[in-house]
Amino acid sequence: MSSPASSPAIYAARIDKVRAAMAERGVDVVAVSVGRDLPYLTGYEAMPLERLTLLVLPRDGEATLLVPALEAPRVVEQPGAFTVRPWVEGVDPIALAAELVGPAATVAVGDQMWARFLVELLPWLPAAKFTRAVGVVGPLRVTKDATEVAALRAAAAAADRVAAQLHAGEIALAGRTEAEVSAEISARLLAEGHDKVNFAIVASGPNAASPHHHASSKVIADGEIVLCDFGGTMNGYCSDITRCVHLGEPPAEIAEAYAVLHAAQAAGVAAGVVGTPAEEVDRAARALIADAGYGEYFIHRTGHGIGMEEHEDPYIIEGNTQPLAAGHAYSVEPGIYIAGRWGMRLEDIVVAAEAGPDRLNHADHDLVVLG
Amino acid sequence: MSSPASSPAIYAARIDKVRAAMAERGVDVVAVSVGRDLPYLTGYEAMPLERLTLLVLPRDGEATLLVPALEAPRVVEQPGAFTVRPWVEGVDPIALAAELVGPAATVAVGDQMWARFLVELLPWLPAAKFTRAVGVVGPLRVTKDATEVAALRAAAAAADRVAAQLHAGEIALAGRTEAEVSAEISARLLAEGHDKVNFAIVASGPNAASPHHHASSKVIADGEIVLCDFGGTMNGYCSDITRCVHLGEPPAEIAEAYAVLHAAQAAGVAAGVVGTPAEEVDRAARALIADAGYGEYFIHRTGHGIGMEEHEDPYIIEGNTQPLAAGHAYSVEPGIYIAGRWGMRLEDIVVAAEAGPDRLNHADHDLVVLG
Repeated sequence: MSSPASSPAIYAARIDKVRAAMAERGVDVVAVSVGRDLPYLTGYEAMPLERLTLLVLPRDGEATLLVPALEAPRVVEQPGAFTVRPWVEGVDPIALAAELVGPAATVAVGDQMWARFLVELLPWLPAAKFTRAVGVVGPLRVTKDATEVAALRAAAAAADRVAAQLHAGEIALAGRTEAEVSAEISARLLAEGHDKVNFAIVASGPNAASPHHHASSKVIADGEIVLCDFGGTMNGYCSDITRCVHLGEPPAEIAEAYAVLHAAQAAGVAAGVVGTPAEEVDRAARALIADAGYGEYFIHRTGHGIGMEEHEDPYIIEGNTQPLAAGHAYSVEPGIYIAGRWGMRLEDIVVAAEAGPDRLNHADHDLVVLG
Repeated sequence: MSSPASSPAIYAARIDKVRAAMAERGVDVVAVSVGRDLPYLTGYEAMPLERLTLLVLPRDGEATLLVPALEAPRVVEQPGAFTVRPWVEGVDPIALAAELVGPAATVAVGDQMWARFLVELLPWLPAAKFTRAVGVVGPLRVTKDATEVAALRAAAAAADRVAAQLHAGEIALAGRTEAEVSAEISARLLAEGHDKVNFAIVASGPNAASPHHHASSKVIADGEIVLCDFGGTMNGYCSDITRCVHLGEPPAEIAEAYAVLHAAQAAGVAAGVVGTPAEEVDRAARALIADAGYGEYFIHRTGHGIGMEEHEDPYIIEGNTQPLAAGHAYSVEPGIYIAGRWGMRLEDIVVAAEAGPDRLNHADHDLVVLG
């Protein structure tokens, strides 16, 4: 459910690599809970609830998965990788965690662990220095192996099929609310093989100018641009795609801006050559938009890494000088947003590869006119 | 979308009450991010992403909502309650947060804030003592006002309708996988008015013995018990209900155990009298199960509070001596689990009220026999 990986050897190998990174970076203990580091290292996904699940992974010594006793039957043990330690109700799992961490000097914590657990751990570990586990797990997770790229490709293909249905006019738009269309896109993502829908943004007309608009009770009208940005998780790996359609012929202003956006997105994709700093992808896309006079309307970074999480390293943003490596997977999604009037974005997932950028999404990149 | 509350005055009043609790408990600053404290205090729900959203609420001085600039259009401002401060990409929001927190001695952090933000804040606030915001916001949120109880009642009624459909045999079970049935229950929760499905556990036969089993590819067979535990969010408030059905006449062993469970659950509901310690509800349900010889098979607490979150205070567990007060809402959900064979659970939401326990779920409490 969490990863195409299936053998204990895979998890043991990943944990070994984390230990090597810990040694390199002076981390004594890694502690991960809710989030994707845990399934990446153990195959097990913590329930995002108030009962603590925590993998305590010392640089030297056995890794232990603390798990609420009533969730222990969910854990598939991976002999040689970690030991499961169920805790029963009434016991203080923080005390158990502190004992497992021991007198460690530097503890690297998973990004998405609930802050309450860290707040509760602080008094138990007064001498510890805390850092982010992404420093040691991230460099592994950022580089996808062939199995992981295949999973991303399959998820992208499923999202492409929904985009194709949108382009073919199979998803009614005019006269329905954004929320209704969002629900239909969600259902179609599931029907195409996703295990879970992570988001289905539907933003029409002026709403499209808010990049993180979700989907409202606004009724979609003829003459509007409709921005659809959706993704989910399939076999543990994420999809994320954005396409815009226009209901009726677009006005010249929108058609012209879209042509710029289309070219900028293609330039961003093309810039993703192995060895290139991540920020160069952002610059390549942004340059075309700025040159056309829309610079101030492209108000976010060009993209984000993707894998077991929708957003992870590498971030495609000015200032990120990390060189792209084969197996880095990320979105390229420039946008132009005119507040109060309209917005547009075009997004594909790309994997950096020795042979050049490997674009995973192939749904029509044009501003398809419907109705 | 987050709360039936709609006027700035409601948020301002809640923030005032938090300030009073802060003074009482010696908290200088409350900092809340992802989780339900934020919509409770501001009407705004943070996106669970890597860009920081944080309400910084000093005991004295203005409350400020730090929000990523591209999400700022989502915020409905509540004049008099807080000020919105969008941060643009490239800026370090942690530095802004640290500046807003200032030289505070005691900082109360929201439970579900990502640990990464606390890890990043620690070096900026070397003198601060951290504590959980639930200490100051929890006492407010635990007591539901009439509007909130009405929202919980409406969500419970919607979940009841899905349970009634299950009981009426409208949801096919035998021959389908648990996952298929889970997807159908999810769709029906949405159709009955929920905005979001939080979980839809379907556990058949031996799988029902794992309390947090989700829904697998196992095909449901005649002769099995099927445990369905599902809930979602409707107008900002949660539902949570468990019913079991049996495919064909149950064997005597299961029928007898269910009779015990049924009586135990009723006893737990009846024990929820205002002024009674929360643990007494657990004891009342547990006593009947233990007396019948199933004590060792009831492996979890009897319930949890519910409101904007599925699980919140008050927890119905041995050791929680907090007296129930009018407006406390919680689940009563004892279970009996025989590993490898079968399991059962029966769950309603109850609100403590001066007139006695107000049970919100009315779907048939029997082990309904189907097929």
